[in-house]
Amino acid sequence: MNPRLFCFTGSDTGAWRVTATNTIFGDPLPAVKAVDMLAGNQTPPAGAAWLLRGVTSNDRYVQYSEKARLLTRQPVLGRSEATLAALIPIRKSNAWWTLTQDERRQIFEEDSAHIKIGMKYLPEIARRLHHCRDLTTAEPFDFLTWFEFAPAHVAAFDDLLAELRDSREWRYVERECDIRLEQAEA
Amino acid sequence: MNPRLFCFTGSDTGAWRVTATNTIFGDPLPAVKAVDMLAGNQTPPAGAAWLLRGVTSNDRYVQYSEKARLLTRQPVLGRSEATLAALIPIRKSNAWWTLTQDERRQIFEEDSAHIKIGMKYLPEIARRLHHCRDLTTAEPFDFLTWFEFAPAHVAAFDDLLAELRDSREWRYVERECDIRLEQAEA
Repeated sequence: MNPRLFCFTGSDTGAWRVTATNTIFGDPLPAVKAVDMLAGNQTPPAGAAWLLRGVTSNDRYVQYSEKARLLTRQPVLGRSEATLAALIPIRKSNAWWTLTQDERRQIFEEDSAHIKIGMKYLPEIARRLHHCRDLTTAEPFDFLTWFEFAPAHVAAFDDLLAELRDSREWRYVERECDIRLEQAEA
Repeated sequence: MNPRLFCFTGSDTGAWRVTATNTIFGDPLPAVKAVDMLAGNQTPPAGAAWLLRGVTSNDRYVQYSEKARLLTRQPVLGRSEATLAALIPIRKSNAWWTLTQDERRQIFEEDSAHIKIGMKYLPEIARRLHHCRDLTTAEPFDFLTWFEFAPAHVAAFDDLLAELRDSREWRYVERECDIRLEQAEA
């Protein structure tokens, strides 16, 4: 089993209660009441409406000078004050994936400022990116992005998404779901 | 099933007969008499000594100007004269994978001329790269590189490998096996 693999399940119960689900582009995911994030490969639990897999991996676009700044500002997952989360699965178009590395970097950062925009919201917003495209199974999304933040930073998180969705990079997004979550009562 | 997934099996029988096996770095693979390349996910056939999985994926380092030249020169797999092949599985070190994109590109091409060296041997040597690192299962290698060529180009192929193995990029290779093959009699 790949030690960097995580599964996200949508069902009636789980550690994170769904507070809102929005389909930004493409087909919606079936509506669920709760989401769980589980390490390792999983078979869909009984009653799960969906199970999404992704692996954390090496950086694809970050450059040396950016990484140094990111490392000093990026918060860890699981902060006690970060009682809200968002799961945002994204699929990009074939047109994106046939671009060369320098073309994708140009759009991602020089045109769209993806890293610069994200940096503005650190250390408030914790984030972990999972890649789905090179898994053994065919997955419905290319990326699963997981965010955690405190209730005081909901507006900042909405601003972050609005900035990214307004970018040239997002013209290559053909499916995106935005699932907002809060920690279920223990 | 990921439509870009391929499996390579090593056993007593298969479409490609093993003519030589060399371990360049790290642990050897168990010796086998034949190799098969199969599309899709496979369970190891009875008697197989090993099964390696990899997916073709988007380019990681190639830039626009390089891609245009590659596309005009790269031959397809399965040419009737290409009766020889090589399967070269490679694993790179953690030090490689924690480098940022610009650091890896610098080593890969500006320092090591990986693409430039490969280009010299086109269209003689056909090549397909399979990625293993972001599969669902933990795989023993990061890449499976598959080459096909005619008997007249064995020396050129050896030169290609010698040039790459002499590069700065190869200091990050911690496991490499070199399995030479010829088409089994039909």
